[in-house]
Amino acid sequence: MEETKSLVEQTSDQIIHFITENDLEIGDRLPNEYELSDKLSVGRSTLREAVRDLASRNILEVRQGAGTFVSDKRGIATDPLGFSLIKDQDKMIYDLFELRYILEPTMAALAAKHATGEQIKKLNILRDEIENSFKNNTEEHVELDIKFHTVIAEASGNVALLHIIPIINESIALFNKNYNILHLKIETIELHKDITKAIENHDETGALDAMTIHMANNRKEFKRIMEEK
Amino acid sequence: MEETKSLVEQTSDQIIHFITENDLEIGDRLPNEYELSDKLSVGRSTLREAVRDLASRNILEVRQGAGTFVSDKRGIATDPLGFSLIKDQDKMIYDLFELRYILEPTMAALAAKHATGEQIKKLNILRDEIENSFKNNTEEHVELDIKFHTVIAEASGNVALLHIIPIINESIALFNKNYNILHLKIETIELHKDITKAIENHDETGALDAMTIHMANNRKEFKRIMEEK
Repeated sequence: MEETKSLVEQTSDQIIHFITENDLEIGDRLPNEYELSDKLSVGRSTLREAVRDLASRNILEVRQGAGTFVSDKRGIATDPLGFSLIKDQDKMIYDLFELRYILEPTMAALAAKHATGEQIKKLNILRDEIENSFKNNTEEHVELDIKFHTVIAEASGNVALLHIIPIINESIALFNKNYNILHLKIETIELHKDITKAIENHDETGALDAMTIHMANNRKEFKRIMEEK
Repeated sequence: MEETKSLVEQTSDQIIHFITENDLEIGDRLPNEYELSDKLSVGRSTLREAVRDLASRNILEVRQGAGTFVSDKRGIATDPLGFSLIKDQDKMIYDLFELRYILEPTMAALAAKHATGEQIKKLNILRDEIENSFKNNTEEHVELDIKFHTVIAEASGNVALLHIIPIINESIALFNKNYNILHLKIETIELHKDITKAIENHDETGALDAMTIHMANNRKEFKRIMEEK
């Protein structure tokens, strides 16, 4: 497991350490090259290579002329789990729905336990916006729906879920051309209401049940579409 | 969601398409630059940039002088989920255990349903090797344990689980200096036996129960270690 790290890799690790230790947030600017190579005691060409490495890992963002910043991509790569390499994309999407089915009901129950007032407010706003997007026939609801489930992941208090849930949902949206049909609009509106209400009331089994129904509906609908193909 | 893709990004997508369409496997060699730029109708400098992009995404591996190959990393990035950016690493590991707790029992039940003879054989071999590593006090069991759970993910038949489970377990091993103590060796040996046996007998609830106990033990032990800190 233990591999010897190159100087560039060690420098990348040092920069990550610098970011977390100094509580740098998304969008914060790093010290300039001269200062940073001095702080980390590495040569500027090594530092430059490490910065390039971290930029390719979506941890840093280099803006020409403006400096180097903490990327808003939170170090999450494009298609980080290599889903684009899976040949049978329909099966993969089905499997991603199965994964959501396993994860999201428990996640909703955890959210009902831990959600803050701020998070509940966010859920209610997103829920409204999704309803409006359905009513006005805009495409926005796809992205809003991902946000809705991401806020629930955030409210669950589990940082690992917060990193994984958006990727699963974005992958489904990215690879699934049927994403739109999939949304049983009226049912979705009702279930989003039930989920939000249960989380708001800190009703753990209520959130578990509402999310289970939501996930089961989604899977059932996806299966139906696949069978019609 | 929809962004216009650059020519290099489009070429990267084309190369991925070429890999999946031609059923190229890990370690297979891609056509040389001249041939490939011709096949994809792109310039060689664009192609070269796309190859570099795919290599940084661990989809391709460029071996100087030998050619370009499908990487054995299956397109999964180093720390793909950006876990190294999370400041409170103890909490993160606890949350990763919670995630395993949610995923792995159901995964084991699915494995009991779908496991092939070949996979069951692999599980029995790994189980033996882990036991030997414990007995001989080697470090090997860490990597073997990750493999054991990865084979169960494979046996579950869910490709999304197969991509996610190794990352969760490797992250725990990578960030958790207490990984060794964590292994309640005798209990682990017994539970690995129970899990393997249940999968072998296609006993879904048996696999669910054995994996639940295994996950609960791991979490309990991790909590104990944290409290002692």
